[in-house]
Amino acid sequence: MPQIKAINHVAVVVEDMEKSLAFWRDALGLTLHELRDVPAEKSQVAFLPLAGAEIELVMPTSDDSGIAKYLAKRGQGMHHLCLEVDDIAGMMMQLRSKNIRLINEEPRTAADGKRYAFIHPESTGGVLVELYQV
Amino acid sequence: MPQIKAINHVAVVVEDMEKSLAFWRDALGLTLHELRDVPAEKSQVAFLPLAGAEIELVMPTSDDSGIAKYLAKRGQGMHHLCLEVDDIAGMMMQLRSKNIRLINEEPRTAADGKRYAFIHPESTGGVLVELYQV
Repeated sequence: MPQIKAINHVAVVVEDMEKSLAFWRDALGLTLHELRDVPAEKSQVAFLPLAGAEIELVMPTSDDSGIAKYLAKRGQGMHHLCLEVDDIAGMMMQLRSKNIRLINEEPRTAADGKRYAFIHPESTGGVLVELYQV
Repeated sequence: MPQIKAINHVAVVVEDMEKSLAFWRDALGLTLHELRDVPAEKSQVAFLPLAGAEIELVMPTSDDSGIAKYLAKRGQGMHHLCLEVDDIAGMMMQLRSKNIRLINEEPRTAADGKRYAFIHPESTGGVLVELYQV
């Protein structure tokens, strides 16, 4: 049986990275591990690790990106919840068998080799859930 | 210096607890640790622990509760992010000194003795952040 092991990260969409870091890094005191441009997603991402899980701030760098459209429609706030799974292919098969609606029918592979897939909010109670096999 | 230690939980507002559990418990395979009525909040809460952090599903049990109003306005989805802190009073002092807007000016005490306080989404990039001293 494939198993969910942990929360990997919570992603937050933000309008203004510096203003958001003024809260998460400067006021709350989290460590900014990395601030990375992700041209493929037309976005900039800040990684703020905590014990066990990470907070990721995502800011669109272009108006025509998916994340910019989300921001225009929904405003700032939590965007998705990423869960670690030990067997992503097995988990996706299990979800399909329970009629859970998947956004990606097959796991995708990130630049760093991690495999991931998204589950549609329609099946989760409104949460965009990402699965991550690390 | 007060320090944020971990994500304690991610709270999700749901319309229909059984339908949501069909995803989180039955399809994803998380363990339902407890399903509790919280009359003071006019809500029902499901606790689904993972390594390190917990997912909490919150369903209003009355139309005049705060959570019902949130649900009517925003729909289902992630509601707040709870962070563990070792010194909540110190952290709140630090946040005030950085002009972060707090919802609770002083820490509140839950029925189980935990001290908590909320930070206003206006200061966090749209996320309702709860601090928890466990």
